[in-house]
Amino acid sequence: MAFTVQDIATALGARLEGDGTIQIVRAAEPAHAGPCDIALAMDPKYADGLGRGAARAAILWDGADWRGLGLEAAVFVPRPRYAMSGLTRLMDPGPEIAPGIHPSAIIEPGARIGAEAAIGPFVVVGARAVIGDRVRIASHAVIAEDARVGDDALILHGVRIGARVRIGDRFVAQPGAVVGADGFSFVTPEKSAVENVRETLGARGDAAAQGWTRIHSLGAVTIGDDVELGANTCVDRGTIRDTSIGSGTKLDNLVHVGHNVQIGRDCLLCGQVGIAGSSKIGDRVVFAGQVGVNDNIFVGDDVVAGGATKIFTNAPAGRVLLGYPAMKMESHIEAYRGLRRLPRLFAQVAALQKAVSKTHDTD
Amino acid sequence: MAFTVQDIATALGARLEGDGTIQIVRAAEPAHAGPCDIALAMDPKYADGLGRGAARAAILWDGADWRGLGLEAAVFVPRPRYAMSGLTRLMDPGPEIAPGIHPSAIIEPGARIGAEAAIGPFVVVGARAVIGDRVRIASHAVIAEDARVGDDALILHGVRIGARVRIGDRFVAQPGAVVGADGFSFVTPEKSAVENVRETLGARGDAAAQGWTRIHSLGAVTIGDDVELGANTCVDRGTIRDTSIGSGTKLDNLVHVGHNVQIGRDCLLCGQVGIAGSSKIGDRVVFAGQVGVNDNIFVGDDVVAGGATKIFTNAPAGRVLLGYPAMKMESHIEAYRGLRRLPRLFAQVAALQKAVSKTHDTD
Amino acid sequence: MAFTVQDIATALGARLEGDGTIQIVRAAEPAHAGPCDIALAMDPKYADGLGRGAARAAILWDGADWRGLGLEAAVFVPRPRYAMSGLTRLMDPGPEIAPGIHPSAIIEPGARIGAEAAIGPFVVVGARAVIGDRVRIASHAVIAEDARVGDDALILHGVRIGARVRIGDRFVAQPGAVVGADGFSFVTPEKSAVENVRETLGARGDAAAQGWTRIHSLGAVTIGDDVELGANTCVDRGTIRDTSIGSGTKLDNLVHVGHNVQIGRDCLLCGQVGIAGSSKIGDRVVFAGQVGVNDNIFVGDDVVAGGATKIFTNAPAGRVLLGYPAMKMESHIEAYRGLRRLPRLFAQVAALQKAVSKTHDTD
Repeated sequence: MAFTVQDIATALGARLEGDGTIQIVRAAEPAHAGPCDIALAMDPKYADGLGRGAARAAILWDGADWRGLGLEAAVFVPRPRYAMSGLTRLMDPGPEIAPGIHPSAIIEPGARIGAEAAIGPFVVVGARAVIGDRVRIASHAVIAEDARVGDDALILHGVRIGARVRIGDRFVAQPGAVVGADGFSFVTPEKSAVENVRETLGARGDAAAQGWTRIHSLGAVTIGDDVELGANTCVDRGTIRDTSIGSGTKLDNLVHVGHNVQIGRDCLLCGQVGIAGSSKIGDRVVFAGQVGVNDNIFVGDDVVAGGATKIFTNAPAGRVLLGYPAMKMESHIEAYRGLRRLPRLFAQVAALQKAVSKTHDTD
Repeated sequence: MAFTVQDIATALGARLEGDGTIQIVRAAEPAHAGPCDIALAMDPKYADGLGRGAARAAILWDGADWRGLGLEAAVFVPRPRYAMSGLTRLMDPGPEIAPGIHPSAIIEPGARIGAEAAIGPFVVVGARAVIGDRVRIASHAVIAEDARVGDDALILHGVRIGARVRIGDRFVAQPGAVVGADGFSFVTPEKSAVENVRETLGARGDAAAQGWTRIHSLGAVTIGDDVELGANTCVDRGTIRDTSIGSGTKLDNLVHVGHNVQIGRDCLLCGQVGIAGSSKIGDRVVFAGQVGVNDNIFVGDDVVAGGATKIFTNAPAGRVLLGYPAMKMESHIEAYRGLRRLPRLFAQVAALQKAVSKTHDTD
Repeated sequence: MAFTVQDIATALGARLEGDGTIQIVRAAEPAHAGPCDIALAMDPKYADGLGRGAARAAILWDGADWRGLGLEAAVFVPRPRYAMSGLTRLMDPGPEIAPGIHPSAIIEPGARIGAEAAIGPFVVVGARAVIGDRVRIASHAVIAEDARVGDDALILHGVRIGARVRIGDRFVAQPGAVVGADGFSFVTPEKSAVENVRETLGARGDAAAQGWTRIHSLGAVTIGDDVELGANTCVDRGTIRDTSIGSGTKLDNLVHVGHNVQIGRDCLLCGQVGIAGSSKIGDRVVFAGQVGVNDNIFVGDDVVAGGATKIFTNAPAGRVLLGYPAMKMESHIEAYRGLRRLPRLFAQVAALQKAVSKTHDTD
């Protein structure tokens, strides 16, 4: 693939100055850019790098003197981070999946494949599954019986979409993601130690030894439009209702979403986040990496939780959280500042005790 | 699949009142139930939902007036949560895996497949592997050479069972689970910084730069009866002995079990739990999501650990744990209540210091 | 496979005493060893086990009286843990992957496979990919288009190597590892709540509802020599530059490495470690299980972090860390000792307040 600088400016809706006909094959950091690369220098701190590299064209910070920087063409963008989305979409070759259905793929009876689909080697599409138009499915993926995937999906290598799962348009799943495994739900014939602990916050009682019997997941998973799942991420089926993920929500790698969980729209769940069963997450919630959410709780709209926050109880809308257990971020920072100073505090209290006891002695 | 209400009552060993001939195709929440659904209303709080839905039959709480609720049939169960296991087992259609061996599956020489097995597309069964009766294996799974899987297993898409692994009856593995990857065990020619840190609890010493040499895993994995593994969960081989998981133990998604670990019977390990190498977990242990267990330690029978508890040292039988590092749950709750009040405590001590110093000044 | 005791001593470069011609088929723990096993008894504490087992040969601690222990041959090693690497390498049969290319494997046009490669069933090698000599690839693995894998790699079942990824020699990847999934990088048209929280450490501001637009990953992943990846571990592509992992570094199971991350040489990252995007990890860094590293930070050479340490800020070279948030290990141990004693401290301060207020009253 090659583009002109003009193509790039047009794709970004950005202002072009200089020679728009220069051919570009790659985006590069300024210091590593060659003559066929467009240098990404959206901040004055990159001026130096431009001098060391050999780019003829660059995306520049507002007001940059491109001629003085030795460039022949410049693209100016108002919000550099956002421009990255347009630029990388333009230049991403995407995975090579040949058009049509690979002869080794197995399409079970009654499955329907949309127009212009590309289905790779060793893919299995189950009976009565419905796959939208222009969907691309890489090797070894499975779309099980009665599942539905909307238009324009990109389903990568070894992804497993379970039976009866329903997914909207423009879905992206990185390799190894699993949608629709059975929920982790077990029950004992009599009340279990865990049930006792949860009621008493600590006492296990005298629950007898007993085996676990599985509660099967009769529900499936419902996923909205524009949802993305990271590599090896797992979303379990619901018990009766479907587990659900709202439109626009993105999950990173190795995320665990338990059975019956409901996640709202436009959320970001970073790497290794875990949501235990039956919890409800609002819209526009952002969880940094390794956040954990207890089962059967509620996290309101617009909550933001920092890295490895463990949320045990309901969190009201708009709350910014950090810590184990989760606190308001500013309380957490203050509490942990105190924790580091605890040894000094113990010393101060000991000194006070000595002083006060002396005062009393001398009374 | 369709059932009568009588079928359901019989399967649950439960009391039926009303018209047992009504045909049921699905279980549903009361408010969403249609005329062919059985409504799940085991608690009086669902009475309202029954009114909004259109169910003709329901599973009800003891003493409910089913005629007054507008129903034509009712099933009464003594322990609703346990009834869910029987009901969902009855109604779960399970994955569609055609009987017999799919023509694309590869069965290596010397492998033995039990009676009535169902083996899906692109499955590989290694040389001399032994697969029990009525085992169902979904697409892309691997049972490597010399592995043994007992009767009635359900092995889902893309599961990898390593060489020489031995598994009991009624095994269930969700998609992407890996049993028998090599353990993570590396050694340096001379003593390493990590060995120093572990001995001194903090000082890395002057260990020189040196590379890591792998200790191969000669052991395999031994798994009892009635064990279940979640999606993308990993259980490593042992170094000399087998890593082992006792009968009746269930692991959720994305769980990591290191080499040489021994897990007892009837344990529950929730999502993203990690057990480091060579630790020993007793019977009936329950770990909530994201719990971590140090290597080479011992966790006694009946231990229960709350979400994201990090267990660094041996835990005696019956202990209920929470926190990082793990404390008794009640101590943790008290300590963290103190942590939140630390800023106030610092202020109080500062005030005391001022008061006492003033007292001394005025002495 | 069978070896003589002499073979084993030679492989370990170790001293042999007694009958070197004894045939050995397995290594075993002393108490479980049979007459064809070599017992591993590198510490005097195993003397008892030797008596209970039936080994004729053993690897022994320095100075052991092998005749007195009833053995016919003994191998003496100076650093037992290191000897385990040589012994287990010698005795590991490795996975059975038949030489040559399995007829079901798909090798796309322009791909080059090195000499003596072994490629299993249902493997896909993408267009123009280059695979080194003596590489072994187990079933269902994918090496995507334009990827390069060096000599002597062992790539296990269902591993996914993405397009344009470059990997050095002697690479090992356990089942289900994913290299080269797209990075988790999304941007909003206007400034988002997350950007506000990060600037203010807590205040989300009044960012409006808005959707996430993907920043595609144009970079790939560069991996050095002698790197190993655990089962279901994920390493994401870089945005412009490659994500990179230095030679000699080993990753355990279920590890997450975000986009643009740079990891140095000879590091060990244990199970479920997560490194957020664009962070830089030095050489010889060791992370215990479940460690988390914030995005865009720097962790210096030789840092060691204990289990579940959460590193939010830059860590200088040589630092030994523990805790959430990460502290120096000795500070953490002291602070948490204080945390456990907090309830007592609150009581002491309350008593002091009473005493001081009384003193003041009596002034």
